[in-house]
Amino acid sequence: MNPNVDKIFNYKSYANIKDVPEVVDLAVLVVPASSVLEALEDCGKSGLKAAIIITSGFAETGQEGIDLQNGLVDIIQKWGISVVGPNCEGVFNADDHINLTFAPKRPPQGGISFISQSGALGANTMFRWAAERQVGFSKFFSSGNEAGLNSADYLEYLSQDPATQVVMIYLEGVKDGRKFVEALRKTCRVKPVVIMKGGETAIGARAVESHTGVLAGSDAVFSAACKQAGAIRVYDADELFDIAMTFAGQAIPRGKKVGLVTGAGGGMGVIAADACAKLGLSVPPFSEETVARLRNILPAYAPVKNPVDLTPIFDPMRLVKCTEIALQDESIDSVISMGFGWRSDLISVEAKAVEEFVKLRAYGKPVLVVTPASKWEFETLRTLEAAGFPVFLTPRRAAMALAALVANGEMRKEA
Amino acid sequence: MNPNVDKIFNYKSYANIKDVPEVVDLAVLVVPASSVLEALEDCGKSGLKAAIIITSGFAETGQEGIDLQNGLVDIIQKWGISVVGPNCEGVFNADDHINLTFAPKRPPQGGISFISQSGALGANTMFRWAAERQVGFSKFFSSGNEAGLNSADYLEYLSQDPATQVVMIYLEGVKDGRKFVEALRKTCRVKPVVIMKGGETAIGARAVESHTGVLAGSDAVFSAACKQAGAIRVYDADELFDIAMTFAGQAIPRGKKVGLVTGAGGGMGVIAADACAKLGLSVPPFSEETVARLRNILPAYAPVKNPVDLTPIFDPMRLVKCTEIALQDESIDSVISMGFGWRSDLISVEAKAVEEFVKLRAYGKPVLVVTPASKWEFETLRTLEAAGFPVFLTPRRAAMALAALVANGEMRKEA
Repeated sequence: MNPNVDKIFNYKSYANIKDVPEVVDLAVLVVPASSVLEALEDCGKSGLKAAIIITSGFAETGQEGIDLQNGLVDIIQKWGISVVGPNCEGVFNADDHINLTFAPKRPPQGGISFISQSGALGANTMFRWAAERQVGFSKFFSSGNEAGLNSADYLEYLSQDPATQVVMIYLEGVKDGRKFVEALRKTCRVKPVVIMKGGETAIGARAVESHTGVLAGSDAVFSAACKQAGAIRVYDADELFDIAMTFAGQAIPRGKKVGLVTGAGGGMGVIAADACAKLGLSVPPFSEETVARLRNILPAYAPVKNPVDLTPIFDPMRLVKCTEIALQDESIDSVISMGFGWRSDLISVEAKAVEEFVKLRAYGKPVLVVTPASKWEFETLRTLEAAGFPVFLTPRRAAMALAALVANGEMRKEA
Repeated sequence: MNPNVDKIFNYKSYANIKDVPEVVDLAVLVVPASSVLEALEDCGKSGLKAAIIITSGFAETGQEGIDLQNGLVDIIQKWGISVVGPNCEGVFNADDHINLTFAPKRPPQGGISFISQSGALGANTMFRWAAERQVGFSKFFSSGNEAGLNSADYLEYLSQDPATQVVMIYLEGVKDGRKFVEALRKTCRVKPVVIMKGGETAIGARAVESHTGVLAGSDAVFSAACKQAGAIRVYDADELFDIAMTFAGQAIPRGKKVGLVTGAGGGMGVIAADACAKLGLSVPPFSEETVARLRNILPAYAPVKNPVDLTPIFDPMRLVKCTEIALQDESIDSVISMGFGWRSDLISVEAKAVEEFVKLRAYGKPVLVVTPASKWEFETLRTLEAAGFPVFLTPRRAAMALAALVANGEMRKEA
C-alpha cells in the first residue's frame, strides 16, 4: 500500500488496504508512528487478522508514546488482530521461506528458533553469526514492544512447532508473568530453552525503558522462574548463540564426566580442567584400559590420564584416534577435543582427519571442539560446525556450553 | 651442534659445543631428555652462560622425570647458567628481531610482553591472535617447568624494560612465592599486569602436575597476592588478550562513568548497561547539554539519555559525532561505541568515518568498539584495532576490559 504510487517493484499498489478486493492475510506496517493507528484500524475494517508493526515511536519514547501505544492496544483488541511489534524488526520463517525482516543476512534452515525483544540482536547479530557459521534457524520473532502478541504467545507456538529443536529468547520485560512461566515450563519439558534477560540491573532497566518501554521487573523473580522451569539462563549474546548451537548439534550427555583431549599443549588441558571444575563438571581419570591404549600411540612423556595431551608430536589423525579412545571409555560422558586448526602447516592433512572425526557422532556422546583460529580461517572448522560439532575459541567457552547440556540432561532425568 | 653432520642450512655444524672456538652467547637445546644433562654440562664447561631447553620429559612426567630435573638444577647451579625451560617453546624478542620459538606466526612489534608456562598459549594462541588483529608484542618468555629462571625473574626484567607497556602472565605454579610477589608489586607500580593462573581448582591442579610438573598452590593465597599487588586477574585466554590489548591501546580513565553509544539498536545498549553495572561501572545520565546536542542530530524517537541509540536511521558519520558528543560530556570518563561493522551495506561509508573516529583519541578518554562482525571481515575494524581501538564481539566483553582499566586507574590513585 502506498497512497502516492500505483506500482511498487512492478506489483500493483493500492492507496489503502480497504481498496484491495480480497481479504489480505498479513499486513506489514512501516508507516510513521502518527499513521499507525489509522492504518491498523483500516486493516481491522478490511477483515485482516494479522499484522507486523515495524514502526518505532511508541511506549519506548515516553508519555506521549505510551498514550499512542494504549490507543494501538485498543484497536488490536477491538478487531482481534494478532499483532507483532510495534518497534520491531519483523518475522522470519526459514521453513516456509518467509522473510519479513530487514535483516541484511539470512541464516540457513535449521532447528533453532529465536524470540527477541531486540531486533538488532536477532537480525544483525544472530543471523550474521548463523550465516557465517552455517548454523540453521527455523523461526525468528522480533517481538519489540509487545503491544499485541508477546513472548509467551511465541513460546507457546514454538513449544508445539516440530521444526524447532531449541528455543533462544532475549527478553527485556515479561508482559504476563503467569502465562509466560506456564509457556516456559511447557516448552522446557520438550526442548531446551536458552534465555537472556536485558534489564537485570537498575541501570539496565532504565535502558530498557527507552528501548522497548516495558518493565524489566524483579530479576530475582525472573531467575527463580527460569530455574524452576528448567530454562538455561545466560548473560551474553555469544553465550546465547554458542549454547543454542551446541544443543542443536550435539546429544545430551548421560552425566557430567568430561574427557579432555589436547593436541594443542598441556596448558589448554589445564585451562579446560579448571573451567570444567568451576562449572560443576568432573574430569575423572581415564580407565586403566584407556590409559594403556593412549600410552600405546603416544610418546612416553605425553600425559594420558585425562587430560590426554598429544604434545607437539601432534598429527590430526592421532587427535581423532585419541578422541575416539576417550569416547570409548565407559566412565566418560562427553569429550572436549582441542587440536583442529592449531597448526596451519597441518591443515592439508586435517581435511581427511575431520572426515573421520564427524563419524564419532556414532558414540552418542557430545564432542565439542576448541581452536584459537578466531577467523574461522580453515575450511575444516567450517566442516565441523556444518556437521553439528560446535567450535569454540577457548576451553572455558566449550565447558560453559557443555555444562548447559549436562544441566539440561539432569533436569530431564528429574522431570 | 649435531654429532652426525658438518653443515645445517649451510652453516658449519660442530659435534659438540666444546669444539666451538669462541664462547657462545646462548644455546638452544632440542636434544632428547636423556641427553640434556650432558649437553648442558658441556655448555657449562665451555663457559656458556645462557641456555634455552625446549626438550620435554622432566618433572611433568613423574618420579623419573623429577629426578632428571633435579640433576638439571644441579648443573644449572654448578655453572651459574641462566636457563629457560625445560619443556618450553623458547623466547621471542620483537625489538631485537630474535625468534627462538617454533611458533608458526609472529606478532608485530608493540608494547605487550608475555610470560607463559604454556608454550602453546603463547606461540599458538596469543601470537596468532596478535598477528590477525595487528596487536603488537615486545617479549615472550615460554617459561615451561622453570628449572632455572622462573616467572619472578622474567617479571623483574619486564618491570624495567622500557619497550614493555603491559605484562601478560599465564602461570601454573609459583616457584618462589616471596620473590614473585615482590616482582609483581614492583611491576604493578609502573605498568599494568594481567594474569591468568592454571590450576585454580583441584582438577586443574592435577592437570598442572602432568603439564609443567609444578605445584599449583593455594588459589586463595595467589588471589590475595594479585589483589594486594594490584594485578588484574582473568580466567580465560580471550580475556587475557582482550584486556592486555585494551591497556596497550587506550588511556586509563579518570573514573568509572561510562557513556554508551549504539548505532546497533537499543538491545545492545541494554546489554551494555547491564554489563557495566554488574562490573561496578556506572552509566550516568548525560548532562542536559549533551542530551540537547544529541537530540539535535537524532530523530525524536531516539533514546538520548545514555545509552544514546542512533536507531535504524543509522549512518557511520553520525556514530562518530554521537561518540564525540558523549566524550565531550564532563561527567563521562569513557565511551563504548557500538555501530561499526554492523551494516555491510554501509561499509563503503565507514572507512571515512573510521578516519574521523581515530581522532577521538585527542579527548584522552578510552573508547572501546563493539561489533558482531566475528570474522573481522571488514577492513574498517582492522584499521580501528591497528590504531589502538580494541574491537569486541559483545558489549559485556568490552565492559570487562573497561572495568580492568578503571580498576587499574583506581589502584594507581591509591598508591
